[in-house]
Amino acid sequence: MTETNRLITLLTDFGDRDVYVGVMKGVIASINPRVTVIDLTHQIPPQSISTARFQLLNAFPYFPGGTVHLAVIDPGVGNCDRKPVAIACRDSYLVGPDNGLFSGVCQQFPISQVVELNNSRYWRTQTPSTTFHGRDIFAPVAAHLARGVPLADLGATISQESLQTLTEFETEYGAGFRGQVQHIDHFGNLITTLPSEKVPANAMICIKQQRLTLGGTYSDQPKDQLVAIIGSHGWLEIAVNQGSAAQKLDVKVGAAVWLEVLNAP
Amino acid sequence: MTETNRLITLLTDFGDRDVYVGVMKGVIASINPRVTVIDLTHQIPPQSISTARFQLLNAFPYFPGGTVHLAVIDPGVGNCDRKPVAIACRDSYLVGPDNGLFSGVCQQFPISQVVELNNSRYWRTQTPSTTFHGRDIFAPVAAHLARGVPLADLGATISQESLQTLTEFETEYGAGFRGQVQHIDHFGNLITTLPSEKVPANAMICIKQQRLTLGGTYSDQPKDQLVAIIGSHGWLEIAVNQGSAAQKLDVKVGAAVWLEVLNAP
Amino acid sequence: MTETNRLITLLTDFGDRDVYVGVMKGVIASINPRVTVIDLTHQIPPQSISTARFQLLNAFPYFPGGTVHLAVIDPGVGNCDRKPVAIACRDSYLVGPDNGLFSGVCQQFPISQVVELNNSRYWRTQTPSTTFHGRDIFAPVAAHLARGVPLADLGATISQESLQTLTEFETEYGAGFRGQVQHIDHFGNLITTLPSEKVPANAMICIKQQRLTLGGTYSDQPKDQLVAIIGSHGWLEIAVNQGSAAQKLDVKVGAAVWLEVLNAP
Repeated sequence: MTETNRLITLLTDFGDRDVYVGVMKGVIASINPRVTVIDLTHQIPPQSISTARFQLLNAFPYFPGGTVHLAVIDPGVGNCDRKPVAIACRDSYLVGPDNGLFSGVCQQFPISQVVELNNSRYWRTQTPSTTFHGRDIFAPVAAHLARGVPLADLGATISQESLQTLTEFETEYGAGFRGQVQHIDHFGNLITTLPSEKVPANAMICIKQQRLTLGGTYSDQPKDQLVAIIGSHGWLEIAVNQGSAAQKLDVKVGAAVWLEVLNAP
Repeated sequence: MTETNRLITLLTDFGDRDVYVGVMKGVIASINPRVTVIDLTHQIPPQSISTARFQLLNAFPYFPGGTVHLAVIDPGVGNCDRKPVAIACRDSYLVGPDNGLFSGVCQQFPISQVVELNNSRYWRTQTPSTTFHGRDIFAPVAAHLARGVPLADLGATISQESLQTLTEFETEYGAGFRGQVQHIDHFGNLITTLPSEKVPANAMICIKQQRLTLGGTYSDQPKDQLVAIIGSHGWLEIAVNQGSAAQKLDVKVGAAVWLEVLNAP
Repeated sequence: MTETNRLITLLTDFGDRDVYVGVMKGVIASINPRVTVIDLTHQIPPQSISTARFQLLNAFPYFPGGTVHLAVIDPGVGNCDRKPVAIACRDSYLVGPDNGLFSGVCQQFPISQVVELNNSRYWRTQTPSTTFHGRDIFAPVAAHLARGVPLADLGATISQESLQTLTEFETEYGAGFRGQVQHIDHFGNLITTLPSEKVPANAMICIKQQRLTLGGTYSDQPKDQLVAIIGSHGWLEIAVNQGSAAQKLDVKVGAAVWLEVLNAP
């Protein structure tokens, strides 16, 4: 089998103090020396499947066909209740524990096949550790997949319906829409659960007693002022020009956001 | 057009908690799958153009000819006042917003051409977001440049004189020289604005009521003692052997440093 | 000389705020443009040779033959007392300052040759800085080694016995075994100095007035409960299911751990 040009992306909650990510890359390089590995982030809060789901969904659309997205946020590692899986989704692949972290991507893009990773021929060892399947199962499987091993060789096909889905943030539709802050980014921008298609240009956005109209860019307001925009990922976002909206409003993930659609005068 | 061996470096204030950097790498890989991307740092303090200018200047000399340095510290994103540019400098390229972050490199190395990035053929989309030009304009342009697309194809040539320069730290020359702490590194070393050529071997360095003579290496002083040296980047640096000068002296970026040249006895 | 497929790994205490690591990668790419560089971690606590020794030992076994492991934790930089070395160990290479950081790997895997890096032909410059040998000596040497330059060309062969070893953590053997916490990872897991071969299935583990029996996986205990397991790196590890053992027990590196082997009833 010849090497292909496939990329592997890596998403974990392993942080940057340890060699866990480096070890996974060493395992990948042992199998597939020329593959390019791109880090998405390793700063998912420990065991936060919902953050991982959000981040993977934001990154997925920007990678070329054939990319293998390897994600290891795995609080149930070593436990038989959660299955190790590989998923063919759109023209790419998802590899990791089936605990809901893939459910964001899988709800938006078509799935063609799901396999349970039970063919130990593609594991690093026949006796994987009970605590680091990233190293012993997921990384080697991703490396083989990126080399061109067919998905069906990695294990038994299972039904798409068996995949875990994560309880979503609430979004009600009444006189207006109700959402939540689903992520606070490095800049302190508040990314809400309200998608751009629900946010007309004349919307009024309410958060923590503040009422905002929709602006176009961060610098539409003076420095240190709040601005509501459609963020680059397609969700309504509340930001502060050259500052942190999370600090200014003192809000956390989960905070409520309301959206009213105003009538034209 | 065949792929070349060009490198791309990345410098941003995006941090490591989000997938913003990974998304830029996905966009680059979609255009130029085999290019090597090297991270300089993504921990520039948010919107700190002066830190970015300092770091890029320190890194630039150590990269091979043809390297494309992609820098996205972009407080004015989406605003028409700041131009997206690509610059041919020495034998390499600079790509990013023209807000002064390139002015350190451009003052030290010769510029041969500057273009404004207004040829949307090399953007990711004809309708770029107003908040993430790193993804929609700068990353794709850098990827094309690294593939060998000529600079002149990327947009209209503009004058070098139109480039923004950043107000520099003060350096006065009287009986001695006066500088400032321009950066505090990970170790707590204080990197000053005084270049090595202004610092003779018999200089006396003053900071916060401390007077220091020039040493050669960190370990020229006992553990936990202050030492003044010419740092590896060529600026006068104040350090503590196996400790943090920033903590010991309780200083921040901008602190004053004096330098007196002593007469030979 | 043709380029080979060798990898370079990087381990430093440089952190992620500065361009020091990026500069080393620029130097490597200038010599060896196609080599793959994998970061192990750059978050070794400043000057902590013992942490570096631990992390390198954990990563080493998972990399393919021929890998060049470049490690720069170098409190004695510029000081003649510590030698710059390259070591042929098992089928791979170690490059960096000889201060004990390689002693973990060198105690577990066979060494075939050690050279002092005194052939300045393979340095970046004939006049290296006194503060950044990572850039001026170690990175260029690693890049040449990864291109296939023979170890013996890099300098004079010295004896294996001359290599520095680090004082190990204590491990006494009485009625049971006594060890220490040698590392606390990103998750707050406590990695002890007790290797798996000393820990029978019926062991009783004691730390801070807590007594634990050996479990198999993190989720063998309810959420937020302590569990003692053999970690993926082969040492006895004390963890909390979906939490931080370091926080729960309020312990630091160096804390005592006892192990008693129970008689079968």
